[in-house]
Amino acid sequence: MYSIGVDIGGSKIAAGVVGEDMKLVCKKSTPFPHTGNPMDSVDVIKTMIDAMLAEQSLKIADARCIGLAVPGSIDYDLCSVVHAYNLDYHDFMLGDIVQGLYPGTKVLVENDANAAALAEYYCGAFRGHASGLVITIGTGIGGGLVTDGKLFIGGMKHGFEFGHATLIFGGEKCTCGHDGCIEAYCSAAALVREGRCAAEAHPESALFTRAQGDLKKINAKLVMDCARAGDEQAVGIYHRYTDYLGAATCTAIALFDPEVIAFGGGVSNDGEFLLAPIRAYAEKYAFFRTHAKIVTAEMRNDAGIVGAAMLYLQR
Amino acid sequence: MYSIGVDIGGSKIAAGVVGEDMKLVCKKSTPFPHTGNPMDSVDVIKTMIDAMLAEQSLKIADARCIGLAVPGSIDYDLCSVVHAYNLDYHDFMLGDIVQGLYPGTKVLVENDANAAALAEYYCGAFRGHASGLVITIGTGIGGGLVTDGKLFIGGMKHGFEFGHATLIFGGEKCTCGHDGCIEAYCSAAALVREGRCAAEAHPESALFTRAQGDLKKINAKLVMDCARAGDEQAVGIYHRYTDYLGAATCTAIALFDPEVIAFGGGVSNDGEFLLAPIRAYAEKYAFFRTHAKIVTAEMRNDAGIVGAAMLYLQR
Repeated sequence: MYSIGVDIGGSKIAAGVVGEDMKLVCKKSTPFPHTGNPMDSVDVIKTMIDAMLAEQSLKIADARCIGLAVPGSIDYDLCSVVHAYNLDYHDFMLGDIVQGLYPGTKVLVENDANAAALAEYYCGAFRGHASGLVITIGTGIGGGLVTDGKLFIGGMKHGFEFGHATLIFGGEKCTCGHDGCIEAYCSAAALVREGRCAAEAHPESALFTRAQGDLKKINAKLVMDCARAGDEQAVGIYHRYTDYLGAATCTAIALFDPEVIAFGGGVSNDGEFLLAPIRAYAEKYAFFRTHAKIVTAEMRNDAGIVGAAMLYLQR
Repeated sequence: MYSIGVDIGGSKIAAGVVGEDMKLVCKKSTPFPHTGNPMDSVDVIKTMIDAMLAEQSLKIADARCIGLAVPGSIDYDLCSVVHAYNLDYHDFMLGDIVQGLYPGTKVLVENDANAAALAEYYCGAFRGHASGLVITIGTGIGGGLVTDGKLFIGGMKHGFEFGHATLIFGGEKCTCGHDGCIEAYCSAAALVREGRCAAEAHPESALFTRAQGDLKKINAKLVMDCARAGDEQAVGIYHRYTDYLGAATCTAIALFDPEVIAFGGGVSNDGEFLLAPIRAYAEKYAFFRTHAKIVTAEMRNDAGIVGAAMLYLQR
């Protein structure tokens, strides 16, 4: 027996086969077809799954599930995607459609941040614990929460939107229409916004010169690199940014009291340079004296595939 | 069969007998003995319980549990109170001590906001739902969360501290040592702080004149009364205050997605005057289009007693 996980992202679709030992047997990746017709992405998914099964000489009858992770909101009863803006999926019956292609196999759909939390729970940073929170720092902030061994998807099953808890009431406009959400301060996009703003005002800064004066070249990695190199402007941004993440972490501790908080996404590649100040902040301000250990997520780029493949253990 | 609930507060200890129909059979109230010796409060509790049992001709052998609610943090494994500052309980083995007095009866200890959530779940505003959040507005902010029919006490069982999620990073100092917590903006104490500040700066305001110029006379009720009467300063405070509560409500919706959010505590006696602007805020800014109904808590002063008495259904 084995299971299949598919991580459908705005840039690529990644699919993999996960064995009984919860390890990846193989994986494939294909660009997401931005044709305007979501059925084209289903064709890509079917081609990828069928190719993997053929290559590994696996029978679909032996698959425990096909799990599909998407960056969007899910209707769990309908197994459909309400909105996944980067995929142009809107009220898209993804589960039913894939189920039609593989009628004998359990097909499950999940939000990608939730899938990432499951991957950490079964195979990564939460192993040995019953609770944990993944905070994935990307263009937005993804959050996935496991409590008491179960993925938390909201009391009314609308989801879990850690990035849209308020951090600064009345602050920066968020993509969701509210002001001052955690996402508006803690995402990679927020780091880029601050970096460009500082570079524009300070052409003497490394931020500006390393981007050769082209503000569009400033990304999250450049801001963190300049901070590590000691550029005054970038260091200021880095201190504020890690304080924001520290406060968001304290909110998570007060509300969920998880055993582990794991940071994922590109910015978390900075490891201790990112985590050390967050830990120091939590040490100083967390409501509970003993609290979550704060670590880097372990499943990295495979989190979506592996978490999606593990969905059969939850439902 | 019946059960016993005791709500131990800084001003009074309230105890009651709750029947199989989850209705209060009788209750009693005694001032909390601030003698510096927590054992004196245990004597008061025993006297109250024994008097109720005698008056109602009940046998202790028929009690399903003695539930004790305290305004503080609980060690659930030890059934002890880690800290309840208003009671001067610190690492106090409350459960063990009361268990020693009633050896044949299950004795359970719970945080009072959590007990209030249970009371709403079994007998009040959450009835018919599997999830709900109580936000109790008092000197501080108490929060109690039920999800999937279970009281949530944190992944590591340290508790659930809704009032200590951040609302304004870098904002007003909170009693917990962090800045800008929900409690620092949404508690009755915050309303009083704002009222006194405005009255001092505006001696022409109703806030000032109705307090006869004595800022100490300004309490939360006076601020809300002045706002309802149209006093300009009080109206300004009221708008900001209900916006803060609206943003805290949006945080709760994004993170817990409960079916019901119920406001309790003295300030919630204002009913629709308090709730209508919170509802309007959530309508405008909540992440999920369909979200929790926002209501007044129903169990009022009996919430602690009834919730404590219902603890045997949870553990």
